[in-house]
Amino acid sequence: MRRAIALAATPGVPLHPNPRVGCVLLAPDGTVVGEGYHHGAGTPHAEVEALAVAGEAARGATAIVTLEPCNHTGRTGPCAQALIAAGVRRVVVAQRDPNPLASGGAETLRAAGLEVETGLLAEESEAVNPAWTFAHRHGRPFVTWKFAATLDGRSAAADGTSRWVSSLPARRDTHRLRALSDTMLVGTNTVDVDDPQLTVRDDDDRPVAAQPLRVVMGERDLPADRRIFDDAAPSLHLRTRDPEQALRTLYTEHDRHHVFLEGGPTLAASFLGAGLVDEVVTYVAPMLLGAGRSAVGDLGIPTIADAFRLELLDTTVVGSGPEANVRLTLRPTLRGTH
Amino acid sequence: MRRAIALAATPGVPLHPNPRVGCVLLAPDGTVVGEGYHHGAGTPHAEVEALAVAGEAARGATAIVTLEPCNHTGRTGPCAQALIAAGVRRVVVAQRDPNPLASGGAETLRAAGLEVETGLLAEESEAVNPAWTFAHRHGRPFVTWKFAATLDGRSAAADGTSRWVSSLPARRDTHRLRALSDTMLVGTNTVDVDDPQLTVRDDDDRPVAAQPLRVVMGERDLPADRRIFDDAAPSLHLRTRDPEQALRTLYTEHDRHHVFLEGGPTLAASFLGAGLVDEVVTYVAPMLLGAGRSAVGDLGIPTIADAFRLELLDTTVVGSGPEANVRLTLRPTLRGTH
Ligand SMILES: NC(=O)c1ccc[n+]([C@@H]2O[C@H](COP(=O)([O-])OP(=O)(O)OC[C@H]3O[C@@H](n4cnc5c(N)ncnc54)[C@H](OP(=O)(O)O)[C@@H]3O)[C@@H](O)[C@H]2O)c1
Ligand SMILES: NC(=O)c1ccc[n+]([C@@H]2O[C@H](COP(=O)([O-])OP(=O)(O)OC[C@H]3O[C@@H](n4cnc5c(N)ncnc54)[C@H](OP(=O)(O)O)[C@@H]3O)[C@@H](O)[C@H]2O)c1
Repeated sequence: MRRAIALAATPGVPLHPNPRVGCVLLAPDGTVVGEGYHHGAGTPHAEVEALAVAGEAARGATAIVTLEPCNHTGRTGPCAQALIAAGVRRVVVAQRDPNPLASGGAETLRAAGLEVETGLLAEESEAVNPAWTFAHRHGRPFVTWKFAATLDGRSAAADGTSRWVSSLPARRDTHRLRALSDTMLVGTNTVDVDDPQLTVRDDDDRPVAAQPLRVVMGERDLPADRRIFDDAAPSLHLRTRDPEQALRTLYTEHDRHHVFLEGGPTLAASFLGAGLVDEVVTYVAPMLLGAGRSAVGDLGIPTIADAFRLELLDTTVVGSGPEANVRLTLRPTLRGTH
Repeated sequence: MRRAIALAATPGVPLHPNPRVGCVLLAPDGTVVGEGYHHGAGTPHAEVEALAVAGEAARGATAIVTLEPCNHTGRTGPCAQALIAAGVRRVVVAQRDPNPLASGGAETLRAAGLEVETGLLAEESEAVNPAWTFAHRHGRPFVTWKFAATLDGRSAAADGTSRWVSSLPARRDTHRLRALSDTMLVGTNTVDVDDPQLTVRDDDDRPVAAQPLRVVMGERDLPADRRIFDDAAPSLHLRTRDPEQALRTLYTEHDRHHVFLEGGPTLAASFLGAGLVDEVVTYVAPMLLGAGRSAVGDLGIPTIADAFRLELLDTTVVGSGPEANVRLTLRPTLRGTH
């Protein structure tokens, strides 16, 4: 199974919309007769690739697979059927498929007389597709809220200028994190005021191949010439102020699993208030402003005991010298605990 | 000289008001005939201690001393005279004495016919007494501004409560830093609102032996029952709003070398604005408030290009789990640079 997980996590495989899956086929004597991994949407699934390698040797073999073989016919046929047809005798699965559309593979295999075992290294396997797993389990995308702020918590100066609070290395780092998501999200006012393009660019400032969907949320009309609507990547205007509804739409209608929320303070406050932020990434810039826009809008918190508390997961200095910013990664904990 | 510096830095020697000094006496053949270090105000100086150990062997010896031997008669006699009287032939000095009251030792020694060399490992020697050196060089104490803030830069919640923004390990760490200073400083409003005691306590919450002077600054009258005026440590009310004047008074009249400024935001802003903050220590607590008092008052900065910039010197996570706070240590750089 460790080998199957390593195959699933092969570098370069797109993170979305499909899960990354690895499969190893073992002959009854334990020799590896086939290996495969899913290379991304529209390409053969891991099991199918491994079966093609094994050919006749698949008969009587054991399939070790990181994710429950799919049961539905998407762009490729169902893997459960392919395993049955190839004469595989036993299937060992790490993670059960949390996707209601694709699950049921284990039952199909058992009904066909195959031996099926599930749960081996399930956690390690889930860690290969954390956002995908989260999204199917919760029926909404995982939400990372990213913000940059000064030591005194300002996201913009008194006159509204915010270029740049964070340093160039921190902005590069942000692009790296954006690329791990499949959706960029901002509020209408950020589009009005800042007109960000919200594409993912590499260290040479060139757009990367796989661009997340750019989403702006809010009821007002926006001018068509805003950069978020340019041809650089797909974009979407969600005319709602309801974070829950927005996330539901992104999951059910757009197959989105990981939202990267980049502000502004008003939208962030509303997601935080609704309990819909799963991870916080902040870049602390070594400067003071003494005035200007705060990083987060009103959360309706009157007193320190009710503070919105987070657990610190990681502290990293990004950049060096005058460009050093401190990146903190955090996860919300229960409200009002001490 | 390395041995003399190590002697000067002997653990347990008080940091103030006197400099820490080490001295090694070498016979003409290079053997060590005496060693000494200054144990704190009112005790013999390093040279005198080393001479006492050497006795007659000091005649013709070379004295290696971390700081220029003093020339004035304080609570102990001048060291320059003692070295001359003992028949020392040569004196090697690391740091020249920046204290105008005590300097001139090298000239006195030379006038008496001794060979004097200065500047050997001067920087290393200064590092043993950084605040003392700074204060005598600039005619005012070194100023460390410490503040605790949330991720969104708040020092207190909307209702004014601020106990506790920082975690217990961070507060313990603060006491450790307080103990490195000789003066605690706050504004009158912090005394009015928070009534802090401003003593230094150890990890068992017991007051340490050497308490810094507690200073509150501002023009208003304060009730005599405020905790800052209790018997736990000396205290002082400086009836001024002028940071420069306050620091001058603390240096010239109270022999203070290192001020630990603990707020509030108004007083901190005025010190920052006057360019009188030399070091910033901030504890970032993993929580959000969305409202409440900002860590620093108005600095008159309209736009991001004019931000008050600092250099990040150190990033340390203090405490763990829900008690993890991030301590950042910074030094102001020039204003308005990019
Ligand atoms: N430093 C950083 O990391 C960073 C990042 C982004 C932005 N910024 C700064 O933040 C400022 C813009 O922030 P902002 O707070 O004014 O704008 P925002 O959060 O981007 O947008 C707020 C608008 O979004 C709409 N909206 C959508 N969903 C909402 C909800 N659930 N609750 C409330 N409103 C919702 C509302 O407009 P409708 O009327 O259209 O519904 C609302 O007025 C700019 O100055 C920008 O420079 C800084
Ligand atoms: N989280 C933290 O690290 C921390 C630390 C300390 C305080 N706090 C919070 O901060 C709040 C108090 O802060 P604050 O800003 O109101 O009070 P402050 O800075 O402690 O005191 C301000 C007062 O000091 C006097 N003052 C002295 N020198 C001054 C100068 N150069 N410029 C301006 N005023 C000067 C003025 O009063 P006069 O009329 O008397 O001259 C002024 O009103 C409290 O809520 C407290 O909880 C938080």
